[in-house]
Amino acid sequence: MYYEKLSAQELEREYASLKRQYENEKGRGLSLNMARGKPGSEQLDLSNGLLDILSSKSSCIGSDGQDLRNYGILQGIDECRKLFGDMLGVDADKVMVGGSSSLNMMFDTVSCMMTKPIAEGCKPWYEVENRKFLCPVPGYDRHFAITQYYGFEMIPIPMSEDGPDMDMVEKLVNSDPSVRGIWCVPKYSNPQGITYSDETVRRFAALKPAAEDFRIFWDNAYCIHDVTDNPETLLNIYDECVKTGNEDLPLLFCSTSKITFPGAGVAAMAASDNNMKVLMERYKYQIISYDKLNMLRHVKYFGDFNGMLEHMKKHKKVLKPKFDIVLNTLERELVPVGVGKWTKPNGGYFVSVDVYEGTAKRVVALCGEAGVVLTGAGATYPLGIDPKDSNIRIAPTFPPNDELQTAVDVFCICVKLAALEKMLDK
Amino acid sequence: MYYEKLSAQELEREYASLKRQYENEKGRGLSLNMARGKPGSEQLDLSNGLLDILSSKSSCIGSDGQDLRNYGILQGIDECRKLFGDMLGVDADKVMVGGSSSLNMMFDTVSCMMTKPIAEGCKPWYEVENRKFLCPVPGYDRHFAITQYYGFEMIPIPMSEDGPDMDMVEKLVNSDPSVRGIWCVPKYSNPQGITYSDETVRRFAALKPAAEDFRIFWDNAYCIHDVTDNPETLLNIYDECVKTGNEDLPLLFCSTSKITFPGAGVAAMAASDNNMKVLMERYKYQIISYDKLNMLRHVKYFGDFNGMLEHMKKHKKVLKPKFDIVLNTLERELVPVGVGKWTKPNGGYFVSVDVYEGTAKRVVALCGEAGVVLTGAGATYPLGIDPKDSNIRIAPTFPPNDELQTAVDVFCICVKLAALEKMLDK
Repeated sequence: MYYEKLSAQELEREYASLKRQYENEKGRGLSLNMARGKPGSEQLDLSNGLLDILSSKSSCIGSDGQDLRNYGILQGIDECRKLFGDMLGVDADKVMVGGSSSLNMMFDTVSCMMTKPIAEGCKPWYEVENRKFLCPVPGYDRHFAITQYYGFEMIPIPMSEDGPDMDMVEKLVNSDPSVRGIWCVPKYSNPQGITYSDETVRRFAALKPAAEDFRIFWDNAYCIHDVTDNPETLLNIYDECVKTGNEDLPLLFCSTSKITFPGAGVAAMAASDNNMKVLMERYKYQIISYDKLNMLRHVKYFGDFNGMLEHMKKHKKVLKPKFDIVLNTLERELVPVGVGKWTKPNGGYFVSVDVYEGTAKRVVALCGEAGVVLTGAGATYPLGIDPKDSNIRIAPTFPPNDELQTAVDVFCICVKLAALEKMLDK
Repeated sequence: MYYEKLSAQELEREYASLKRQYENEKGRGLSLNMARGKPGSEQLDLSNGLLDILSSKSSCIGSDGQDLRNYGILQGIDECRKLFGDMLGVDADKVMVGGSSSLNMMFDTVSCMMTKPIAEGCKPWYEVENRKFLCPVPGYDRHFAITQYYGFEMIPIPMSEDGPDMDMVEKLVNSDPSVRGIWCVPKYSNPQGITYSDETVRRFAALKPAAEDFRIFWDNAYCIHDVTDNPETLLNIYDECVKTGNEDLPLLFCSTSKITFPGAGVAAMAASDNNMKVLMERYKYQIISYDKLNMLRHVKYFGDFNGMLEHMKKHKKVLKPKFDIVLNTLERELVPVGVGKWTKPNGGYFVSVDVYEGTAKRVVALCGEAGVVLTGAGATYPLGIDPKDSNIRIAPTFPPNDELQTAVDVFCICVKLAALEKMLDK
């Protein structure tokens, strides 16, 4: 019963039937949320042991003999730099461990470059008129928001199965000196769950930017966040950039927000010595030292990077059924009618659904009226403008499984209903 | 034996004697530190219970029903906003609880105003040529460093027993539109331990700044940090500013860095609705939420503000003997020879010593050679330039008492030796 093959009369009949289903769901007084990429409470419980790991009887003396309860060690404790170095694929001495938020470290990094040049002879970005930033779409709304706040023109770069359209990236970066950066979630991208291909990573490493201070913001937020038994691998961008003599190009970020506790985890970044020098020159004025006791908690809890990988298997066990609920329901409800396309991610936090063109806003509104909160339509595009009004980000992690099933059922009804409204010009 | 009354011959004899004492100390291979305002380990132990307060069996549900292990509540949990509101003397709804560092919140605030106007119709500070900031001296080097980093001309304002020279502050602030802010540590100031008088606070509240976006950075770092049984009180600047219709003037900061664990405590700021609106507009892009579990730990540990005040009595018990060691030794060694002046603080973290003019750098160097590390001479002045080369900040809190006694003994020898070198033109 492909909608496109139905007669007007058949469409009307289907519309009437769906409308009844929708009104029925609406009458149930639902209050469900598939909006934000928040871990569910079962996931949070996995890390509760972190709260026991330090006690008044613990030694808080770090590996270098310093009392971690006191000021000091601006770049983070060595044990924790090693942990994040292993996570990001770089030596520990390239790592700075910050507060609890990698988003904050990205914000600080952009903020730094706004008023201080990252490379000698360059202007602070504040003084760069028509400064531009590349934004792979669909992408992460909070990335785009930072460059929006700082007055960048944001250029959408379409995503393919291999990552951002590298022909477009190369053309823009290598020819336009006003292009100063690009946002990347290179593994299990937000929201599509796409892992950049080796070829894509190599092309990033081989960029020859027109602007000397062009930087790749490589937010490896989901680097160990598999949700199926088919884990994907990402080529090491830093190693590739060393090979091309471009080690100043990438700035790497990650955190334990979706490993332990969002907001109460630990965040880190890695960068070349040149980049780190400029950033540390800022950090030394910004703060005396970050929360080393929380770093110590994480180091003690995981032991090492392998311990972290083991921990992630527990998350996978919780998350796989949730992704299955979403994907199976989409398959069952939408494939037969030929409406919608979506990715089937092996990791990350989202399912990215492209609904019938021109109906994403309507789908979100219909869901909202029926008590199912979705991420706003357009949120995955700079300035919230999805030119096709088609992409919706589904976040399956937070609701309990039964609520998630109901929410996706409602979502599918709304996707079909909105498509029929459009086809029937209602 | 006032040095000034001694003959050249007597001075030479004293010099020779001190030189022997100094060489003797130097030979002991000391390694002592009176440089930074770090709590000692006995103080840190006072808060070890904080590490037991949350466990895997604790409820982490906040007063509003949200799971504090997850994202959310950007402005900080209500319970903690109340605690800091009481500390800063404002309603909880004026408070934002940030990460672990009030310095970071001050940096972020200046950083915010560099690129976004805090008041309508004003320019971002980046665009203000010849932007100036007032710096009461002696003062806190890390304050000055922030405005140095952001390219402000820093104007030293002499401190009196009542606080900054308000004639000078009024004249500059009310007439010069390029003056955009002032750094204040209004209670038990760093380094002198001076509490601003009621009159001084009222004059601050009554300022009529030439620049609409002039702001008072009111760093109440030592608001409850008594070290004697003669606690001082500070007039509530926010209340005074409300009375004068100037509630947008002050930005209040504090933290638990010197109450619980430096770097692993909780920091907060308070501001008028107008100011907070601009700052929150930045914070919402900067971070999703700060570490609410650490907020919860602090709230549970103290119960309320009174619990915090009780806790501070334990700090006082540890600190009073340390301040006594410094002050008694200075009294015994320096008063008889008529060299040096210093404050006798009732709170805070420092003793500010003015040594013989033109010898502060030499004293610090002499101490360093003898294994006693002091805060660099000049550190208490913008750009590290003390025009009289006279002020030295002594931080008595970190060393154990016996080491502190030795360190101050060496310090007094060096103060006298440097004075004699100067008098004898050596």
